[in-house]
Amino acid sequence: MELRNQTGAGVVDCKQALDEANGDMEKAVEILRKKGAAKAAKKSAERTASEGIIATYLHHNKKLAAMVEVQCETDFVGRNEDFLAFANDMAMQVAAMNPEYVSPENVPAEVLEKQRRLFREELAGENKPEDIKAKIAEGKLNKWFSEVCLTKQQLFKDDDKTVEQCMVEISAKTGEKIAISRFARFEMAPAPKTC
Amino acid sequence: MELRNQTGAGVVDCKQALDEANGDMEKAVEILRKKGAAKAAKKSAERTASEGIIATYLHHNKKLAAMVEVQCETDFVGRNEDFLAFANDMAMQVAAMNPEYVSPENVPAEVLEKQRRLFREELAGENKPEDIKAKIAEGKLNKWFSEVCLTKQQLFKDDDKTVEQCMVEISAKTGEKIAISRFARFEMAPAPKTC
Repeated sequence: MELRNQTGAGVVDCKQALDEANGDMEKAVEILRKKGAAKAAKKSAERTASEGIIATYLHHNKKLAAMVEVQCETDFVGRNEDFLAFANDMAMQVAAMNPEYVSPENVPAEVLEKQRRLFREELAGENKPEDIKAKIAEGKLNKWFSEVCLTKQQLFKDDDKTVEQCMVEISAKTGEKIAISRFARFEMAPAPKTC
Repeated sequence: MELRNQTGAGVVDCKQALDEANGDMEKAVEILRKKGAAKAAKKSAERTASEGIIATYLHHNKKLAAMVEVQCETDFVGRNEDFLAFANDMAMQVAAMNPEYVSPENVPAEVLEKQRRLFREELAGENKPEDIKAKIAEGKLNKWFSEVCLTKQQLFKDDDKTVEQCMVEISAKTGEKIAISRFARFEMAPAPKTC
């Protein structure tokens, strides 16, 4: 009972842990702690694990390429035509639109802080109420997100919607959560003319 | 003449600089300094700039992909069949053999130091002369390079030679320096079984 109070673990787990520890209370707590941590890790792995595919894009001049990893929940959707088309569109999107981050959540805190400071400084001299300035700064930040964050960019193939809106559509069609986990992009600098 | 002695620049450059500075010695030195720096930067850009292509590889299961940037000296060689085949082989090599660095020169100093320390520690207990131990450690380091460095790996398609040896062959065939500048590799972790 003392072990149960101390750890909040179930009766069976406590009994097993005490047996395993030969009655040593401190050892039993340690055993329960490890078991709990392992369980939590397992659950978290199950929750974050996902199916999905990698798509690549290579520009015809072979000087520009991108790859992107797009996740879904089952391998069934991973073979879905709309999902595959979306992944291919994303590889081309990354190549063409050169995002720096997947989404605003992926912008490092110090980069975000630097941008906020920049926008505040731009407005510092203007004779406007503070709450208006805050709103304008917020608008500038969202504009910036729509340039550097893949999910906030306008779709290259259809600039009536953003990547994020397109993801919601695919999600609705397939009934699964769709996520872009990472991308990479290579572009060769043009060689200087030597004429 | 004073300006020439001070800067080592040519007569024509010194005269131009003095004209531009309206006879102001200090200004003329500054002008020559800037001109020199600009010239050096231009030369260096010309020397390091190069042609080449990016190649991509996407595994049939769409869970593994790689891209690699391979450089040559002219766009003529950039369209050469052997060069293109080599670039494609490299994309597949990166996917299959999972290197961490392009070549030993790209291994960060602290990583290299850690490996050296590890190999020295492995040999610490052995009753061998120091020079023999140093040779064995060197061998272990080279073995490690052949695992983590792309250029030192055995060719995936033909393990009779290394990537580096293959590059020398392509260089000899095309008459140009061939270099691998960077690569990226995505592999999706297999989703845990949920049966």
